[in-house]
Amino acid sequence: MPAIRSALLAAALLAGTAAADAPRSDAVIGYRQSIFKLILWNYQPMGEMVRGKRAFDAQDFRKRAVRIAFLSQQLGEAFPEGSNSGAMTDALPEIWKQPQDFRAKLGDFQREAKALREAAKTGDQVKVKERFAKTSATCKACHEKYRAE
Amino acid sequence: MPAIRSALLAAALLAGTAAADAPRSDAVIGYRQSIFKLILWNYQPMGEMVRGKRAFDAQDFRKRAVRIAFLSQQLGEAFPEGSNSGAMTDALPEIWKQPQDFRAKLGDFQREAKALREAAKTGDQVKVKERFAKTSATCKACHEKYRAE
Repeated sequence: MPAIRSALLAAALLAGTAAADAPRSDAVIGYRQSIFKLILWNYQPMGEMVRGKRAFDAQDFRKRAVRIAFLSQQLGEAFPEGSNSGAMTDALPEIWKQPQDFRAKLGDFQREAKALREAAKTGDQVKVKERFAKTSATCKACHEKYRAE
Repeated sequence: MPAIRSALLAAALLAGTAAADAPRSDAVIGYRQSIFKLILWNYQPMGEMVRGKRAFDAQDFRKRAVRIAFLSQQLGEAFPEGSNSGAMTDALPEIWKQPQDFRAKLGDFQREAKALREAAKTGDQVKVKERFAKTSATCKACHEKYRAE
């Protein structure tokens, strides 16, 4: 009987902990989804300019490239241990199983986003297109491995 | 009869336009809610430092102040005409009824966020607390009038 009671108590405590942790996990997930939403908001029109689907506006492109580089840095605190539960998330558990590889891939994106920003400052469309392709490749490399379809 | 037909046609066209605009409106709403989420994510720990609920970390405070100032600028394109429908939004229609006043209040926040960033660079806690209170007042002034409870 004491064994059952302590098992029930342990279960209750665990449930209590999970409930207490949930809002925090949800908050982190909301935070990182918001970062990705802002990145996408700015990246889409840049892509349209690169692909010639809208006129290339060097000033607008540069403004958005600065934002992408800035936002990419905020991803650094967006994947703490334990934040793959709670609210709906596309982040795969592999992120926390292979943290070094994940951090390396995030670092690739941050580095390329900076290089894209610098290219955008020159206004040289050839350079910009090259760097845009390289940045997109870092997005893809991470999404393929660490994001659910 | 032609009058009825053209009225029906006009209604159909309007409905078509509304349907075509809906995803765009949802995207804008998602974009601006994401900006506010990132602002809040960074502003909350700053508030805790200001109120002495966590140790004042000048470097961390400064980093977050830079983000707030940066994000505040992105709100400029977050309230286009017609973006008060579609997905759930707390933005009140008054925003688009009194655009000049709304823009002025948004401008107040952007200006104060910059001033807070500059104060944060000095690391002077007295200055920082003063500016933080002023920034918070600009948040409140806009929320009271233009955000649903």
